[in-house]
Amino acid sequence: MTLSTMSKAVLTVALLAPLALVPAAEPPARGFPGRLPLTKPTDRPLSAAMQRAYDFWGIASLGSPRGVSQNDRMELYSNFRYSRLEGFDYSCNTSRRDPTKVLKIDGTYYVWYTHRKTEAPPSGTGKATDTIPSADWDLAEIWYATSNDGFAWQEQGVAVPRPPKPDYGWRSVTTPDVLVFKGKYYLYYKGQPIHSSDESPGLELVRAQGLAISEDPLGPFTKHPLNPVITSGHETCLFPWKGGIAAITSLDGPEKNTVQFAPDGVNFEIMSSIEMPPLAPGPFVADAFSDNEDGRGITWGLCHIPPPVDATAPGNWAENAHFTLARFDCDLSRDTHRSNFKSTYPGRYDEEAFFSSRAHLSGWLLNQVKKEQQQLDRNTILQQQ
Amino acid sequence: MTLSTMSKAVLTVALLAPLALVPAAEPPARGFPGRLPLTKPTDRPLSAAMQRAYDFWGIASLGSPRGVSQNDRMELYSNFRYSRLEGFDYSCNTSRRDPTKVLKIDGTYYVWYTHRKTEAPPSGTGKATDTIPSADWDLAEIWYATSNDGFAWQEQGVAVPRPPKPDYGWRSVTTPDVLVFKGKYYLYYKGQPIHSSDESPGLELVRAQGLAISEDPLGPFTKHPLNPVITSGHETCLFPWKGGIAAITSLDGPEKNTVQFAPDGVNFEIMSSIEMPPLAPGPFVADAFSDNEDGRGITWGLCHIPPPVDATAPGNWAENAHFTLARFDCDLSRDTHRSNFKSTYPGRYDEEAFFSSRAHLSGWLLNQVKKEQQQLDRNTILQQQ
Repeated sequence: MTLSTMSKAVLTVALLAPLALVPAAEPPARGFPGRLPLTKPTDRPLSAAMQRAYDFWGIASLGSPRGVSQNDRMELYSNFRYSRLEGFDYSCNTSRRDPTKVLKIDGTYYVWYTHRKTEAPPSGTGKATDTIPSADWDLAEIWYATSNDGFAWQEQGVAVPRPPKPDYGWRSVTTPDVLVFKGKYYLYYKGQPIHSSDESPGLELVRAQGLAISEDPLGPFTKHPLNPVITSGHETCLFPWKGGIAAITSLDGPEKNTVQFAPDGVNFEIMSSIEMPPLAPGPFVADAFSDNEDGRGITWGLCHIPPPVDATAPGNWAENAHFTLARFDCDLSRDTHRSNFKSTYPGRYDEEAFFSSRAHLSGWLLNQVKKEQQQLDRNTILQQQ
Repeated sequence: MTLSTMSKAVLTVALLAPLALVPAAEPPARGFPGRLPLTKPTDRPLSAAMQRAYDFWGIASLGSPRGVSQNDRMELYSNFRYSRLEGFDYSCNTSRRDPTKVLKIDGTYYVWYTHRKTEAPPSGTGKATDTIPSADWDLAEIWYATSNDGFAWQEQGVAVPRPPKPDYGWRSVTTPDVLVFKGKYYLYYKGQPIHSSDESPGLELVRAQGLAISEDPLGPFTKHPLNPVITSGHETCLFPWKGGIAAITSLDGPEKNTVQFAPDGVNFEIMSSIEMPPLAPGPFVADAFSDNEDGRGITWGLCHIPPPVDATAPGNWAENAHFTLARFDCDLSRDTHRSNFKSTYPGRYDEEAFFSSRAHLSGWLLNQVKKEQQQLDRNTILQQQ
């Protein structure tokens, strides 16, 4: 078959190009949509998308903000950039993950995190022993490290060791998250309810986040009656923002990759849609415990990053887990304006990202796709039937 | 300073760990949130997030769907995986980008794309000549390629050459997108209005998408009065879905990284939040021109990917542009159910992605961050003021 035998419709796709590029009747200056009014127009109809731009996002969210341009939602919008850390050298079967908030005390930064150093890699629940972990966070304890600049760290050793067997918690001790808000201690935590009713064959595993509140930092913590308070995200990341609490959700659920805000710390609303947010972020929060209803936000913190997956190796995700700590930077702060982090165009991923081990189509998934494609792909309908 | 001199609040963060993990008073089966009802409960208050889960997303969107579990929004949710292509070998100063929809004719796949082969790399507008391009898409023409499986391609050569100078369009010919809908030809295109009023110092550059409709595939096309119809995304990607039109937005604007749907092809609503969608996707759409109000959706297509940025090299983004075509796979189809692509947990990015050239903090941005940090980072407030 040659091009000349194709139908008019196919040729049209190719030939439309010059037409699409030559709106000769109108000079470019009058082209669509001309001039966007800063207030919602009342003299012309708007598409659903433009109504959302005025009513929900705020019209400033459509532009690449420069200088003073901000609105409530754009203040809680940011891009994220990542840096490797010094001082956390990898050695065999060592994992560091789930950093706490970073605190600064007398000019020195402190972070706590889940640390595992075992004689063997995670083996899955079936093969785990008292010294062989089931998963990356098994047989772990809490360590801490210090830094003068947030990039180079000195690992100080254990902060909270595992209790002796068979005391409760002997198997692993991992990192929590807590804030002080309205005179009480707010503990946000992840829940993994399993819904196995037959009425709902599809609802297999739900990750959501709950809130427990206490008068005392040592508890007892009472679960909030409105739980769950966040339906998306995989790990908690919360910080004081103005008079309420802001949250970064990543990785899971219909509202993943958003920044949310709850004036009351309970009822969270979506403020912005973000790209490639940090995993399990532990932000530097100077005012996490200040409880002054003037939360200033964050500009950086630590997070964890998984290693590449070896798609050719046997085993499952647990066996591939040796997480490392990294640093993220952003602009979710009321005290700075970093235009590069505020651009609504975060920049393209490159081939390193698209073909990274977890975004690349490979293994059994590639085989499934190739097999299904033969059944699925009908010829294009070139004439209306 | 040692741990023993820190305040109670700091210690609390570390010591809370065992408390958070030991809800001893309640067995795990009764833990939060227990059992999620499939219909919205009326006998208890719900958090704002749970109200959205029932009223907007649909409760099935909270679970990892298996088997039959779907709702309208989850049908237009997908993860994406990427593959390198055979047959598009890179040679110096050659770029391939912005693929059209893929068509299948008599069992063979066809794609058209913007192709540039010049004597020098893009140089920016100031240095461009009749033979040196200003940007990656300058001095380009439309080429096409064929394939039997969508992975291995044979480049066939030029389909739409540039007209001779000084005819309009001599400088470059690039790829458009068109659909047939309700008996007319729908041309979706990108606009880049610049709003330079002083009333709005921040609204610098807005990317949005417009719609033009014609009775005839060769035009004339009339711009729709409700333009812009999509406020986010950088390139258009639209396909028939049921009785309307679905769109993938990526890369730009407050609603980037979403799948949207317009029953009328004009008024688009957000259906799902997606992660790492393809750039400039050209999906395989068997029914792009069938106009039968029964759009089946898509499972794969071609997209383009930029090369890594060399942060140490002089120059700007235009000089780093030699795009390549790649393949994406997904499940935005009514004819298949690929559970791996439907998981609300797309999987973590790994260090290859987080430290890729465009996500890594480096160069002047790293210097800016380090400098600002010294002014921004106050000591953590450990006691309430």
